[in-house]
Amino acid sequence: MEKIRIGIAGYGNLGKGVELAVRQNPDMELAAVFTRRAPESVSLKTPGVPVYKDEQLADKAKELDVLIICGGSATDLPKQTPEMAKYVSVIDSFDTHAKIPEHFAAVDAACKAAGTLGIISVGWDPGLFSLNRLYAESILPNGSSYTFWGKGVSQGHSDAIRRVPGVKRGIQYTVPVEEAMEQVRACKNPELTTRQKHTRECFVVAEEGADKAAIEEAIKTMPNYFDEYDTTVNFITEEEFEANHKGMPHGGFVMRSGKTGDGENTDQMIEFSLKLGSNPEFTSSVLVAYARAAYRMKKEGQSGCKTVFDIAPAYLSPASPEELRAHSL
Amino acid sequence: MEKIRIGIAGYGNLGKGVELAVRQNPDMELAAVFTRRAPESVSLKTPGVPVYKDEQLADKAKELDVLIICGGSATDLPKQTPEMAKYVSVIDSFDTHAKIPEHFAAVDAACKAAGTLGIISVGWDPGLFSLNRLYAESILPNGSSYTFWGKGVSQGHSDAIRRVPGVKRGIQYTVPVEEAMEQVRACKNPELTTRQKHTRECFVVAEEGADKAAIEEAIKTMPNYFDEYDTTVNFITEEEFEANHKGMPHGGFVMRSGKTGDGENTDQMIEFSLKLGSNPEFTSSVLVAYARAAYRMKKEGQSGCKTVFDIAPAYLSPASPEELRAHSL
Repeated sequence: MEKIRIGIAGYGNLGKGVELAVRQNPDMELAAVFTRRAPESVSLKTPGVPVYKDEQLADKAKELDVLIICGGSATDLPKQTPEMAKYVSVIDSFDTHAKIPEHFAAVDAACKAAGTLGIISVGWDPGLFSLNRLYAESILPNGSSYTFWGKGVSQGHSDAIRRVPGVKRGIQYTVPVEEAMEQVRACKNPELTTRQKHTRECFVVAEEGADKAAIEEAIKTMPNYFDEYDTTVNFITEEEFEANHKGMPHGGFVMRSGKTGDGENTDQMIEFSLKLGSNPEFTSSVLVAYARAAYRMKKEGQSGCKTVFDIAPAYLSPASPEELRAHSL
Repeated sequence: MEKIRIGIAGYGNLGKGVELAVRQNPDMELAAVFTRRAPESVSLKTPGVPVYKDEQLADKAKELDVLIICGGSATDLPKQTPEMAKYVSVIDSFDTHAKIPEHFAAVDAACKAAGTLGIISVGWDPGLFSLNRLYAESILPNGSSYTFWGKGVSQGHSDAIRRVPGVKRGIQYTVPVEEAMEQVRACKNPELTTRQKHTRECFVVAEEGADKAAIEEAIKTMPNYFDEYDTTVNFITEEEFEANHKGMPHGGFVMRSGKTGDGENTDQMIEFSLKLGSNPEFTSSVLVAYARAAYRMKKEGQSGCKTVFDIAPAYLSPASPEELRAHSL
């Protein structure tokens, strides 16, 4: 069997996760890694795979079927994805919701000019959560949708904590409020404020001699990040931080309740949830499944930019349509 | 706006549910109902909609865009769907898992000959549960999948109870075992026997003077239906039956746990669940969303038989691709 040749651009947490995910899929192989760093400074887990500078993509694209771009959404992907789509079909996990239309347009133009295929905003939110919102809203037009995140680490909020004077190390967990979720599950269609949906739990290692009360106050009142939430701040030792707060768990819940008929007993509830030990590794696994779709759609002659909404589910599976109908339907 | 003209074939619980669901979708209208009964004996909730005999479909198909066929899987759909696909695009909820390949082939041949589009096995299982199995298995190839059903009414098991001598009325609920689900959620990958996954709860109104112990024994030892399960039989009065057991609730859970990496903290858990007040009305709502997809795909020039695996999610939503990207992704 000819394997799908996967490239990775950017070898951080996400890129490393893609490398691990490719190993779990026998119809794929890691063909090359592209980096902004010095290639010789990057040491892969997979022996024999070349590491190139990003600028070499134009020359090396013929070694790949699909390039999974593992940069950040703030500054990397808006440049990288349209640029790299000139040479090869691409997937990214662009997650700045408000800027998706703009990013889509840029990638679509690049892909159409080059005859490549791009899939943007792949992951779990945007990604699997978006899919579940779409399916549930299409099936239950008369209803209410809810998204809860957590329990999990928010990088943005953890970064914000670490900028507070006197904080040596810090991490923030977003926690969904169980009572709010129970109201939704009971089809009560509650109107929920920001504060009623999530709490924020912080673990901080303070610098020696730091004013802990001042740190706590600075965190809890921080605008945009914490002031609209019930926040708890726990001071812990560096050992405790090292032992219990090094993982990157996350997850969440997408729920939709609706009524189908006009009688009693017509409350309907659809719920999707994720409980992720490693957020970046899970996102990588979603990216790799969609790389299979990109490979197949490109082979069929399709080009341009797509999102998860445009991809028929069968494209994601290594099984044939016949096998899927016989065993998975 | 031109509305999608929906036809219903078969006006039982499912057909009535389709009628209610069409009302919730402003881009659709109910155009006609087809029945095997005398048309004048069928009274719809929607005024002004014609009721025809099944045999009139050849003449009346031009009044429809998509026909939703609401017959049973055992004997109706294997005949009706390929026959009716000669005249118009069709959707059904064929749910005999083992016979899906055969049914697919028959509908595919009829659709291709006629230039129509068919979508078979639409609903929640097969249907949404199948989709969730496919997505989860494609994303986490190294893992285990579990499906639990209930709590809900099984028509087949309720029918079986009612055939026991001395039973006046009877209903059976399939109940998932909470401890088994908790093991799965904890990523313990348990090997579960039939008995460990579900229990069966029966409510029976006995005929006057019937031997209740004999009824209970007959139910609990019934091969294929109950002998492999822990079954409880509750005798209740007809009033209690009437008050508490007239609904058709159902639901269930599709779970997949997997490991992405080789480190700790790489347990990943995907869960999808439904809690349905009315099983037939929910199935109808899924059928109606897929009727929108059939309409659009046919308009694009596609034909032949499809399943939920072949339908890009965007086809289900009344929103445009631009709206979906801006607001739902």
